Amino acid sequence: MSKDTDAWRSRFVLPANQVYLDGNSLGALPKGVMERVQQVIAVEWGTDLIQSWNKHGWIDLPARVGAKIARLIGAMPQEVVAADSTSLNLFKVLLAALKLQPERKVIVSEIGNFPTDLYIAEGINQLLGGEYELRFIESNQLAAAIDESVAVVMLTQVDYRTGALLDMQAITALARSVGALTIWDLSHSAGVIPLSLSAWGVDFAIGCGYKFLCGGPGAPAFLYVAERHHLSAQPALSGWMGHAEPFAFVPNYTPSQDIRRLTVGTPNVIALSALDTALEVFAGIEMADIRAHSLVLTTRFIELMQPLAQTHDLTLVTPLAAHQRGSQVSYASQHGYPMMRAIIEAGVVGDFRAPDIMRFGFAALYLSLADIDEAVRRIALVLERGIWREERFAGRNAVT
Amino acid sequence: MSKDTDAWRSRFVLPANQVYLDGNSLGALPKGVMERVQQVIAVEWGTDLIQSWNKHGWIDLPARVGAKIARLIGAMPQEVVAADSTSLNLFKVLLAALKLQPERKVIVSEIGNFPTDLYIAEGINQLLGGEYELRFIESNQLAAAIDESVAVVMLTQVDYRTGALLDMQAITALARSVGALTIWDLSHSAGVIPLSLSAWGVDFAIGCGYKFLCGGPGAPAFLYVAERHHLSAQPALSGWMGHAEPFAFVPNYTPSQDIRRLTVGTPNVIALSALDTALEVFAGIEMADIRAHSLVLTTRFIELMQPLAQTHDLTLVTPLAAHQRGSQVSYASQHGYPMMRAIIEAGVVGDFRAPDIMRFGFAALYLSLADIDEAVRRIALVLERGIWREERFAGRNAVT
Repeated sequence: MSKDTDAWRSRFVLPANQVYLDGNSLGALPKGVMERVQQVIAVEWGTDLIQSWNKHGWIDLPARVGAKIARLIGAMPQEVVAADSTSLNLFKVLLAALKLQPERKVIVSEIGNFPTDLYIAEGINQLLGGEYELRFIESNQLAAAIDESVAVVMLTQVDYRTGALLDMQAITALARSVGALTIWDLSHSAGVIPLSLSAWGVDFAIGCGYKFLCGGPGAPAFLYVAERHHLSAQPALSGWMGHAEPFAFVPNYTPSQDIRRLTVGTPNVIALSALDTALEVFAGIEMADIRAHSLVLTTRFIELMQPLAQTHDLTLVTPLAAHQRGSQVSYASQHGYPMMRAIIEAGVVGDFRAPDIMRFGFAALYLSLADIDEAVRRIALVLERGIWREERFAGRNAVT
Repeated sequence: MSKDTDAWRSRFVLPANQVYLDGNSLGALPKGVMERVQQVIAVEWGTDLIQSWNKHGWIDLPARVGAKIARLIGAMPQEVVAADSTSLNLFKVLLAALKLQPERKVIVSEIGNFPTDLYIAEGINQLLGGEYELRFIESNQLAAAIDESVAVVMLTQVDYRTGALLDMQAITALARSVGALTIWDLSHSAGVIPLSLSAWGVDFAIGCGYKFLCGGPGAPAFLYVAERHHLSAQPALSGWMGHAEPFAFVPNYTPSQDIRRLTVGTPNVIALSALDTALEVFAGIEMADIRAHSLVLTTRFIELMQPLAQTHDLTLVTPLAAHQRGSQVSYASQHGYPMMRAIIEAGVVGDFRAPDIMRFGFAALYLSLADIDEAVRRIALVLERGIWREERFAGRNAVT
C-alpha cells in the first residue's frame, strides 16, 4: 500500500515544511493544473478566442467534468454535471424535487447540517409561501422523522463539524420505502468515500469541487440527478444553457432533455478547466483504496492523539467506529480557537468551527503515515508547552 | 486621440493577423491576467492554501471586483458585486424586485430581449404560480406598455442582434413616474457605453463579465442594487455567503445588511482574480472617451461597408443615428451564415445569430481605425469573389 500512496501523493504540489490537514476545506494543488490553465488563457482565450467554444470544446466542459465526477460517486456519466456553486445546485434540485410531489409538505434534514443547506431550504419554503414543515432534527431521530408525509430527505453524508458519517444506503432505502425523495450533499464525501448513488437509488445529489476533488478555491460544484428524473425535474432557474436549443435563440423556454436542464448561465471555462485537470489525480485509482488509506490515517491520528486529548481537555467528537466516520477528526475544546491558531503556526494546518470545534481533515491522496506522526509531534509541542496561551492567539472566531 | 487609443490597445494580447470583431461576445485577453492567475494558483492556492481567504483577501473579491465595475457604470462602489452568471443574477434581482411590490402583476420586457432574460422571467412566473402577465413587446411599444400596473420593466440596453441602444435614462424616468421598478441588463453596455445608474435612478442591473469587461470565458457576472433597496431586497437564493454572519454557522438565515445578501455560494477565486486584473485595462480611462472612439469605429465601418451592403444584399439592421446604437454593427442576410463563416476564415472574426444576423462588435479599447479598414478590405474580398458560396461554408446555424 505505501508504494501506491507515494505515487498518489506525487500528483500534488504540496507546501514545504507543513502538514496540511485542511483538505476537507480546500484541497491541495494537483500538478498539471497550472499548465492547463496557462494553455486555456494563452491559447484558447488569447489566440483562438470565441472559436474555442467549438474548437476546444468549452461548451461541453460541464458535462465532461461531470462524467469524471460520476465515476467517483457511483453514478452514470450522464447523471452528473459540473456548474455553479453547491448552494445554487441545492436550490435547483430541492425545488425540482419538491415539485415532483407537490402534495407532500415536509422537508427532513439534520439541525446540524451545513448551514447553507438549511438556509436554502428556508429560502425555498419562504418562496413557496411558507407551506412546508422544515423538520430539522438530530441525526438519531431520522428514522422516526421519515414518514409518508415527507417530500424530501435532504442530508449531508459527512457532518462538517464532527466528521460523523451517515449510512446513505440505509437512509435512502428508508426514504424510498415511504415514497420520499433523497438529496445528498456530498461536499465532504466525493473523492474520499466510496459511493454507489445509482445502485442505492439516490434521487439527487450535490457537492463541492474544491474540497477532496481539489478543483481550486471556489471551484465549480456538481449536481447529480438520477436518470429516471431527467425528463420530470423542472428547472426553476431556467437560463439559456439549460434550454433544449440554447443557440436557436427562441423566445420561449423548453428544457433540455438531459441533465443540462439544470445548468443556467454561461459555463466558467477557466475554473472548469482547472477542475477538469485536477480530477486526473483520481485516474486509475479505486475509491475503495482511497477509503482504506483514509481510515488508516484517521485511525492512527486518533490513537496518537488520545493521550494528548486526555491531558489537555480535548473531547473527541468524531465517532471511534471506522464505518461511522468520514475523513476528518474533530475535537471540542473551550480553548479550540487559540489552540488551533497555535497549531497552525506550528505548521499543522487544520481549522476551527464555532463554537468550539478543532477540525483535522485527511485527504488520503496526498497524506502519508509519516505526515500523521509529524503532525501529532507538533501538536504535542503546542499543547505541552502551552504555546496556545500566548497573547497573540487569543480570540474566539475565525473566518475560515 | 490616436495616441491615447494606441496606449489602450497596448494593454491587450491580440491574435496575430486577425481583426477581432467579436468582443461583444468574448473580450480579448488583457495583459497581466496570465501573471495574476499564475500567482493565484502557485502561491495563493498552492502554498498558502486555506489561509489565503484572509491573507490574500479572497473573501472580499466579490465586493472588490464589484467596486471596480461600479465606476464603469456610474454606481457607488457598494452598489455592485461580482458573482455567479448573468442569468442567475437576473433571477435574484427580478425575484427581489417583484417581492417589493407584490400587488403589481406585470413584467414588461422586449420580445427581442436576449432569450435567457425572457426564460428567467418565464421561470419565475411559473414558480410564483403563473400569476404574472409577461408583457413582452416590441421596443416601439414600450411607452404604451409601461403603466401603473407594472411591477418591473426589465430590458437590455443594447439589442444583442441589432445593436440598437435604448434610452435608459428616459425609460427609467418613465418607469419611475408610474411606480415601476427597473432592471437593466448591461451585458452589451458595461465597459463601452457611459452609464449613470445612480443618477438616473435605476433600481437593479445585471451584466456580463466576459464581453466588454474582458474577464475571460464564462467570467463571473455582476449585479447592481441601488442602495435604497439594500435592506428591503429579499434574497431568494439564501446561501451562506449572503448571510449576515457566514462564519457564525448558525442554523437560521439572516441576510447581510449590504449587497452581499445577493451572493450565494463560495466565490470562484481564480475566475474573480482574472476579472479583477482584466478590469485594469480601464484604469485612468473615462467611459466618455471610450464611447467617442467606439462611435468613430462603428461610423467608419458602416460607411465603408455601405457600397458592399448594397451590392451583396446585406441589410443594415443597426441604427444609423450614433446615439441609437451600441458598439456593434449588424447586417441581415439570407446568406448570413456561410458569409460569416467565410469572413471568419479570411481573418475577420464576427459572429452569426439565427436566423439571419451577421454581427460585428467593436471593443473600443483594442481596435483602431486601421483595423476597420483592414476588416472591410477582407470582407470585400470574400463578398466580391463569392468565396462564401464554396461548399465548406454551407449550413444555417452556429454554436457561437
